[in-house]
Amino acid sequence: MAVRAAVAGASGYAGGELLRLLLAHPQVEIGALTGNSNAGQRLGALQPHLLPLADRVLEPTTTEVLAGHDVVFLALPHGQSAAVAEQLGPEVLVVDMGADFRLTDPADWERFYGSPHAGTWPYGLPELPGARAALEGSKRVAVPGCYPTAVSLALFPAYAASLAEPEAVIVAASGTSGAGKTPKAHLLGSEVMGSMTPYGVGGGHRHTPEMSQNLSAAAGEQVSVSFTPTLAPMPRGILATCTAKAKPGVTAESVRAAYEKAFADEPFVHLLPEGQWPATASVYGSNAVQVQVAYDEAAGRIIAISAIDNLTKGTAGGAVQSMNLALGLDESTGLTTIGVAP
Amino acid sequence: MAVRAAVAGASGYAGGELLRLLLAHPQVEIGALTGNSNAGQRLGALQPHLLPLADRVLEPTTTEVLAGHDVVFLALPHGQSAAVAEQLGPEVLVVDMGADFRLTDPADWERFYGSPHAGTWPYGLPELPGARAALEGSKRVAVPGCYPTAVSLALFPAYAASLAEPEAVIVAASGTSGAGKTPKAHLLGSEVMGSMTPYGVGGGHRHTPEMSQNLSAAAGEQVSVSFTPTLAPMPRGILATCTAKAKPGVTAESVRAAYEKAFADEPFVHLLPEGQWPATASVYGSNAVQVQVAYDEAAGRIIAISAIDNLTKGTAGGAVQSMNLALGLDESTGLTTIGVAP
Amino acid sequence: MAVRAAVAGASGYAGGELLRLLLAHPQVEIGALTGNSNAGQRLGALQPHLLPLADRVLEPTTTEVLAGHDVVFLALPHGQSAAVAEQLGPEVLVVDMGADFRLTDPADWERFYGSPHAGTWPYGLPELPGARAALEGSKRVAVPGCYPTAVSLALFPAYAASLAEPEAVIVAASGTSGAGKTPKAHLLGSEVMGSMTPYGVGGGHRHTPEMSQNLSAAAGEQVSVSFTPTLAPMPRGILATCTAKAKPGVTAESVRAAYEKAFADEPFVHLLPEGQWPATASVYGSNAVQVQVAYDEAAGRIIAISAIDNLTKGTAGGAVQSMNLALGLDESTGLTTIGVAP
Amino acid sequence: MAVRAAVAGASGYAGGELLRLLLAHPQVEIGALTGNSNAGQRLGALQPHLLPLADRVLEPTTTEVLAGHDVVFLALPHGQSAAVAEQLGPEVLVVDMGADFRLTDPADWERFYGSPHAGTWPYGLPELPGARAALEGSKRVAVPGCYPTAVSLALFPAYAASLAEPEAVIVAASGTSGAGKTPKAHLLGSEVMGSMTPYGVGGGHRHTPEMSQNLSAAAGEQVSVSFTPTLAPMPRGILATCTAKAKPGVTAESVRAAYEKAFADEPFVHLLPEGQWPATASVYGSNAVQVQVAYDEAAGRIIAISAIDNLTKGTAGGAVQSMNLALGLDESTGLTTIGVAP
Repeated sequence: MAVRAAVAGASGYAGGELLRLLLAHPQVEIGALTGNSNAGQRLGALQPHLLPLADRVLEPTTTEVLAGHDVVFLALPHGQSAAVAEQLGPEVLVVDMGADFRLTDPADWERFYGSPHAGTWPYGLPELPGARAALEGSKRVAVPGCYPTAVSLALFPAYAASLAEPEAVIVAASGTSGAGKTPKAHLLGSEVMGSMTPYGVGGGHRHTPEMSQNLSAAAGEQVSVSFTPTLAPMPRGILATCTAKAKPGVTAESVRAAYEKAFADEPFVHLLPEGQWPATASVYGSNAVQVQVAYDEAAGRIIAISAIDNLTKGTAGGAVQSMNLALGLDESTGLTTIGVAP
Repeated sequence: MAVRAAVAGASGYAGGELLRLLLAHPQVEIGALTGNSNAGQRLGALQPHLLPLADRVLEPTTTEVLAGHDVVFLALPHGQSAAVAEQLGPEVLVVDMGADFRLTDPADWERFYGSPHAGTWPYGLPELPGARAALEGSKRVAVPGCYPTAVSLALFPAYAASLAEPEAVIVAASGTSGAGKTPKAHLLGSEVMGSMTPYGVGGGHRHTPEMSQNLSAAAGEQVSVSFTPTLAPMPRGILATCTAKAKPGVTAESVRAAYEKAFADEPFVHLLPEGQWPATASVYGSNAVQVQVAYDEAAGRIIAISAIDNLTKGTAGGAVQSMNLALGLDESTGLTTIGVAP
Repeated sequence: MAVRAAVAGASGYAGGELLRLLLAHPQVEIGALTGNSNAGQRLGALQPHLLPLADRVLEPTTTEVLAGHDVVFLALPHGQSAAVAEQLGPEVLVVDMGADFRLTDPADWERFYGSPHAGTWPYGLPELPGARAALEGSKRVAVPGCYPTAVSLALFPAYAASLAEPEAVIVAASGTSGAGKTPKAHLLGSEVMGSMTPYGVGGGHRHTPEMSQNLSAAAGEQVSVSFTPTLAPMPRGILATCTAKAKPGVTAESVRAAYEKAFADEPFVHLLPEGQWPATASVYGSNAVQVQVAYDEAAGRIIAISAIDNLTKGTAGGAVQSMNLALGLDESTGLTTIGVAP
Repeated sequence: MAVRAAVAGASGYAGGELLRLLLAHPQVEIGALTGNSNAGQRLGALQPHLLPLADRVLEPTTTEVLAGHDVVFLALPHGQSAAVAEQLGPEVLVVDMGADFRLTDPADWERFYGSPHAGTWPYGLPELPGARAALEGSKRVAVPGCYPTAVSLALFPAYAASLAEPEAVIVAASGTSGAGKTPKAHLLGSEVMGSMTPYGVGGGHRHTPEMSQNLSAAAGEQVSVSFTPTLAPMPRGILATCTAKAKPGVTAESVRAAYEKAFADEPFVHLLPEGQWPATASVYGSNAVQVQVAYDEAAGRIIAISAIDNLTKGTAGGAVQSMNLALGLDESTGLTTIGVAP
């Protein structure tokens, strides 16, 4: 089977990472590549690491250009996917790497994005309970946000096993590529090297409702989320430190057992041996997720920590993994659990 | 007044930072510099940034060498200060930058350090309620740990004003200098650049009881601490994200007011204007502390975040600030609130 | 004596570093701070590391605002200083941190900057032969470029002692702050971390004629310069590797002797002991210059290497040092040779 | 065909990178993995990014353990390969990633390594004139050093086309992984982040004779090399800035033409379009080489710059590429020209 794929938004970081993965996918043929402000430019000037595509030229993001592909990936600014998607036929697999179709509650969408809610698509985090079934054969996929990917995978086992109280406290550090390629002063190398700084503190980050949605579904009750993202001096990676008060009767053993069970058959999630902790460097460029969990008896809290590559498992790798499921391919096709380190 | 100061442990990061500050202190004359494995070496080879001291030679850390100074700073591995200190006369100001005399509860010490408790000295964090009075004129000072400095300053106002429930959840990122200068594989540049990783998770970090001690004192009740430290790819800096559930009736205004009051007259703690968040880069090489606080109404939590330079305010700057108080000098002498950025 | 100083261009990196130094200068009182696009903003939002100036508000860069100061520093884009300077009276000390008045040959200026040459001012690199005399009492100073500072100090002793053939080959690595604070995609943290890349290769960099001018003056003959600058993943610092073929009869000893003589009385240039090499980290935030030199007998070349902080000695520190000379103050006032490390 | 490969020295950076590549090689089956001080440890603890091999245990480096493989890779400290290699039969392909068999002149070896010369094997840089023929079918391969790989590829076209005078001046920046995984103080993250520093200046670096050997062979005359390596604050990558005086009659066009011809059919060397310069980030984790060349008419010099990943093309990728040739496989099998960026 040859799957012909178009990428809308090929000049950004998410688009570039997607192309890196698609180039290694044995069943994908890369079709149209589009950009808006960069239309007409050689990809070699915009994504110099993608040598095999150096001479490809970006086209404008139009329905005509995107037509005639089996899969269309949308790596567009939040809020722009819906308009493009509705012009693509129902026979085309549309994988949206933006936020437009992630949330189930229109009120959440409107509060955080300030525009009408476009709808909800099957959610591209196959490791969540029930997610694989919804993705298999689907023609529409909403790829999760990078933070919700890291956080949901770290915490859902505790909630699914009813081990944790429904108030999660999360602090996560992200590499700068998560903030995109648009030049802004606070993202300059001079500013970020040597610095850690928080942003969107106090519930303001748009990924908060998505985390709450995922954890609540696992828990079967509403889980509130206190989420503080921080910008770390590295290009890639998310380290999510997620804690919740343990329910009565929880022990270190019951916590460990819940995590072992949750990830026993997962190809990409690796529960580390006890005593070893996740590091973003270990999953650099990989679709793997490193998870470790501890029970702090003195504080009465479960502490689950995950490391992902925000651009791979957190964005483009999650998109390819979901595409594989939607197309009926082996879920791991074209993806690796091997990081580039050191 | 000329104060003659000796530094035991001058070849490490804490000792080097202390010397950097003492060189700028108008009333200090730098006396003996000692090291053990490095005794006999030129300081220029060990601390090449301290140009004015390049030709000084390290002496062994003995009572004879340390004798005859007005102040002796101990920048020694934890557990080694007590033996040295007891041989220094009661008329000498001894400023211990190790952990030996920080904890009030011998059981805490024994649990985390595994040796008999040496005692408790006045605690060198002047900004804490009551701390200045204990430091003024004292001949013994226990300089706080770097994490407890950042965390206690971020959270004590909430506890002192009875705004927060006595269960704090803290995640902090530290630059690598906090781990010291002894070569270890996981601290190699190749390993740390591009990586975030936690350590001492689940209550195991030795700074946990010190934080709990400080916050409990401010609260007037026992405060439990869930503390997760992470290693960040930067040489210096701590960003501490500290949260606690708000007590009933708390509002954004009452939180802000408590912090404004707590830091109104502090020369080194800067409560940022609303909307601006701490960044470790802004306090690089400075004794300043940036603090910001938010009340997340949806999650019902207070989120207080601080940034310090772990080597300056977190270690050597705190030591000099305490020395100034102990000697009756202006507390700010020789210290700056100006960072080196970008 | 109280010197009242204005800074035009206070929101950029050069302006920020200058303010950091002026705050530590015992005889300077900081007057007007100007910016153009940032006029009206609090300095605390633009330069959050300069805590004592946090509440100062930027004014527009006009003659009225700059009037009434003893010293006016111009940290403006290249080509904009001349227009401002000519409106400042001859009694005002004007220190230009831009390129406008550095070059002596109008043809060089026109070739590299494409506009009419504004003139030549005394050159603010006091360590060069004859430079101090020209600066003392001058009312106009042209601060050198950061690369020419590093390169000229590394190589002029070899040329002044007639040890080197008049063809210098220079490769220098600069931290990203040298490229300024204007947001550009290739300067994003995501792009620069983990990457080394050259620019302005083949003689195109505007600092090339300035280097040639300095080295030719030292040599007493025209020195050609092959200069390749590279962008390094660090915020600050320049490491300049400068080589030239040795003239006949040169020995390792004659090279060493020339450098020892050249820097014997220099307060800021430190010729390292043999076997120790410059590191940018050692001069971080300092006005010091580390220099080392070797004679590669097999290749017949002299290799001189210098490390500076591009913002301090390479820009703002050089400006203050020159101001001190122009005002008749001790040359080192307000400046340090102590770096912030690690 | 299934090729069974053993790796001696699997715990270091070169060994880890080799395993990363072999895991992606469709015809290689990974056999014994050995280490000395780390024998008995799980690879998951030593190379946590190599998830599929996490449960493999390191064996001691003995003839018995290495026996029975089709290929044995030696990633051992310099000087240790010869003793191991001579115990492996002539039917086994031995790929030495150390220096032992790179140099043709025993005097060079003895001068730089201080031990008897073990011999010379076919040199694993297929892009050099004549190198492929020597590698095809060979049972012994000497993988080049990382610096010589970058430098030889940047400069040999100029020498092969008789465009350059036989005195090359080279300054190269390397990521820290080139210095290995053995903990040393100057390689700590605290030391290297934010710093550039040279080492082995003045002809002392062991890679110098290897560069000279390669360039001399291309030139047909003895080429002297002035080589200055610098340590850059990044984990991986080499940027080599290589210059030489142009011979009379050289033009920008003749230089460009020589490089286009040299690399026209090379699968891994990419001569960038004019105006675009190599960046180490673009070849991160890739076997690609980016090359650009300029002719500086004013200085009369050719400036050729290359970027490689020191661990991939500079070590393990070069080893796999050579193995492919030696085994009669397609040279590119298991290798990629796609970097992981940003």
